[in-house]
Amino acid sequence: MTKRFLRMTIAYDGNDFAGWQRQPGKRTVQGEFEDALYRILGRPTLATASGRTDAGVHALAQVVGIETEKPIAEPALQKALNAELPEDIHVFDVSPAPIGFDPIRDAVRKRYRYLICDGRTPDIFARRYVWHLFHTLDEAAMRESAQALVGKHDFAAYQTKGSSRLTTVRTLFDVTVERIAADRIDKLAIEVEADGFLYNMVRNIVGTLVEVGRGKRSITWPAQVLASRDRKEAGMVAPAHGLYLLWVRYD
Amino acid sequence: MTKRFLRMTIAYDGNDFAGWQRQPGKRTVQGEFEDALYRILGRPTLATASGRTDAGVHALAQVVGIETEKPIAEPALQKALNAELPEDIHVFDVSPAPIGFDPIRDAVRKRYRYLICDGRTPDIFARRYVWHLFHTLDEAAMRESAQALVGKHDFAAYQTKGSSRLTTVRTLFDVTVERIAADRIDKLAIEVEADGFLYNMVRNIVGTLVEVGRGKRSITWPAQVLASRDRKEAGMVAPAHGLYLLWVRYD
Repeated sequence: MTKRFLRMTIAYDGNDFAGWQRQPGKRTVQGEFEDALYRILGRPTLATASGRTDAGVHALAQVVGIETEKPIAEPALQKALNAELPEDIHVFDVSPAPIGFDPIRDAVRKRYRYLICDGRTPDIFARRYVWHLFHTLDEAAMRESAQALVGKHDFAAYQTKGSSRLTTVRTLFDVTVERIAADRIDKLAIEVEADGFLYNMVRNIVGTLVEVGRGKRSITWPAQVLASRDRKEAGMVAPAHGLYLLWVRYD
Repeated sequence: MTKRFLRMTIAYDGNDFAGWQRQPGKRTVQGEFEDALYRILGRPTLATASGRTDAGVHALAQVVGIETEKPIAEPALQKALNAELPEDIHVFDVSPAPIGFDPIRDAVRKRYRYLICDGRTPDIFARRYVWHLFHTLDEAAMRESAQALVGKHDFAAYQTKGSSRLTTVRTLFDVTVERIAADRIDKLAIEVEADGFLYNMVRNIVGTLVEVGRGKRSITWPAQVLASRDRKEAGMVAPAHGLYLLWVRYD
């Protein structure tokens, strides 16, 4: 039988997962996904994601690749997966992919969103989905200071140690800081788009911008942190449960 | 010391509670609330709500009354409660109430909201907060058929047995059926306002309107159910986790 490469677009709620990557004795997205594939396809099937999201991080459109010899039609596989998967994972699309499709290596661009609820009234219904800060943030200051990060830079200062990337240079295409109307209580959304991300890079950028938003640091500080290339200079790592992988682009 | 009556407005996420009412060995809103009051005021204090919401039902602005001899200022009590309460309960307001204030007896009007996510794509992030139906509902038909319920009627057909209300006559002031833009995936919101509600009345109305929205029943059916005064005629009881107590009005 001929091998086929398939590309799937999936969403998951990160709260009850120890991240994407399969780990013994832990509930992970990859573990649940591969278990469902095994029940449907009848053999062990490796599922690779565009990136291994950490424990608690959500995905609105993660891309997952598999290789299979089974002649199951894409819509039938999508339906079977959604029937087998738990309710905190959903498959939006299953499509044929080029031979050798590798969701990590082939990704050319990604965008993340980070949600914050600032101010004195918490949105208790969103407590698992946004970072609650009991300070009102100055989003204009955050927006202005974030622009210094756009472009091709060494983002070593915004990386948490522990990863083994060959280079810490990345190109950041866009950073936006906007208030969005959500039901009941407004949220602050920070979005970051780049050709790739270092370990905890978005959460480090958000933690740094929040220091500016609280007025504890000046508008030029995120640029100074960037220039230092020193992780110890950056702000705190923002918590995982406010972070969403929005999409991944392939050529 | 003089006794004071206080009125509080609170929100709670019903998912992890066995309803409002204190029950041995179960996590309830009243239990958590009275435990917090005990830690703050140093003595057992009864907390009464405008109504005992069922397990899983949420509140955006439930009204709770207490009686206390402690001279604590209202803003200080609010702050202390929010510090003591778990993160799925929030106190928005603490105000003086008239002597003898009874949140159940004195309530003159209430409004509930019910949220549905219809269509083939579930919002996995809202799965604890809306009823997911994998059918697209005809909201115009639901809206039209619901109007027959407005007015003073015997709602016995929309009551689940097990309550001991003296009369099943209630005045329904308003029913609305509207699509609301929520982040990512639209929801259908059904709101019902009345001078009082029978046991499971909103959930029975919603379950009945959904039958119309799915095209399984005619637009005149909810009126026929009402006229029958027979619970066996109504649709299914909609699940608790889509229901929100929006507000309670006092004279």
